[in-house]
Amino acid sequence: MIQFYSPDIEKNPSLSAEEAQHCVKVLRKKEGDTIYVTDGKGKRFECEITSVSRSEVKLHIVSESEIAKSWNYRLAIAVAPTKNADRMAWLMEKCVEIGVDKIIFIKCGRSERKVVNIERLRRNAVSAMNQSLKTRLPEIEDILPLENILTFEGLKYFGYCDNDEDKKEFVKDYKPGHDVLIAIGPEGDFTTEEVERLKKGGFKDVTFGDERLRTETAALYGVCAVHVINDMK
Amino acid sequence: MIQFYSPDIEKNPSLSAEEAQHCVKVLRKKEGDTIYVTDGKGKRFECEITSVSRSEVKLHIVSESEIAKSWNYRLAIAVAPTKNADRMAWLMEKCVEIGVDKIIFIKCGRSERKVVNIERLRRNAVSAMNQSLKTRLPEIEDILPLENILTFEGLKYFGYCDNDEDKKEFVKDYKPGHDVLIAIGPEGDFTTEEVERLKKGGFKDVTFGDERLRTETAALYGVCAVHVINDMK
Repeated sequence: MIQFYSPDIEKNPSLSAEEAQHCVKVLRKKEGDTIYVTDGKGKRFECEITSVSRSEVKLHIVSESEIAKSWNYRLAIAVAPTKNADRMAWLMEKCVEIGVDKIIFIKCGRSERKVVNIERLRRNAVSAMNQSLKTRLPEIEDILPLENILTFEGLKYFGYCDNDEDKKEFVKDYKPGHDVLIAIGPEGDFTTEEVERLKKGGFKDVTFGDERLRTETAALYGVCAVHVINDMK
Repeated sequence: MIQFYSPDIEKNPSLSAEEAQHCVKVLRKKEGDTIYVTDGKGKRFECEITSVSRSEVKLHIVSESEIAKSWNYRLAIAVAPTKNADRMAWLMEKCVEIGVDKIIFIKCGRSERKVVNIERLRRNAVSAMNQSLKTRLPEIEDILPLENILTFEGLKYFGYCDNDEDKKEFVKDYKPGHDVLIAIGPEGDFTTEEVERLKKGGFKDVTFGDERLRTETAALYGVCAVHVINDMK
């Protein structure tokens, strides 16, 4: 099965220019062919191609199905973007494949990168959603100040690299079935003041194993850990 | 702490051309400076730089320490290389950061790629070991026929994408403390004959969650899951 993305398919049964190009130029689909299209909100539609042009593919919806999310908790990741933009593109792809509900980029005092190419990252997310046959595009938040994550309802954790030997491991603290937000700081780490704000906002200071992990690796390890702990039940 | 790699440091206290260049050209270290060097076999040495040239850095060993491995089981991954070589470079980096003992590339009937650039992959592994301050370089095996993984001693699993709904999830079957080998097939999957050989060799057929994961994502999810399941204890 090959899946495409069209957020407004129910109102306007067609593919946008970018998806249309992939469909026609790369996959050489033609009038009369059947394709599958998700709205990114949980539904997948079986569609027949009714007309094809350079910039648009028009569709007729044959049937639709609501695809259940394969996890029953809310998993959000907040990450300070790395200097190297490719590492964030990679993280986006892997988070969507493995499964997250929300990805928030945060601005920290020691961030080397204060802007992200959110359009590129959204394209990475769409591509990973289609590749892994998911029907829900995670919420993706452009770079925000730290305050914006403090109001999350659920368990809240952050990774911080001080030398407190007694720090709890994330995998020993998180319990299955709980909504969770994991925040990972920049390469230079959260500032002392940011750590205080996170703690006051109900965030627990944890480690992700004994290893020194890069920002994007710690984030992905956290995502995997939440699913593993829930799926072991 | 910045760590370098020199496998023969005890016999010949120096850095090789590549590590020397990074040390001198990029990090601008000079005679008299202190650096840390691992032999990739578990030891880390505090060294003083005694002389610097274009292609070599000579060292005096000041002290040495044996660094314990942070996991007490053997974790091996066998993976059919993906068509896109960057995906394997990425997998190598992430596996080493998160921690594996052995990485084996396997040749399968449906592999689109039958050779890998093993030198590039070893460089990725060295770089990730130094970055994450590990002192053990995993064993890395150049591409081998499937037979070579059948003799592994420990729990053996493989991921296969048929539509058997009753297939067990890896995270529900693996038990902490056990040596484990996880094999992931090529993009086109293992052939029926390969599946038979794996099963006869004691491999269990499992899924890595409900999601359709790329080869390298399934491999990394397996590595994370083994550590998470062991660290939860």
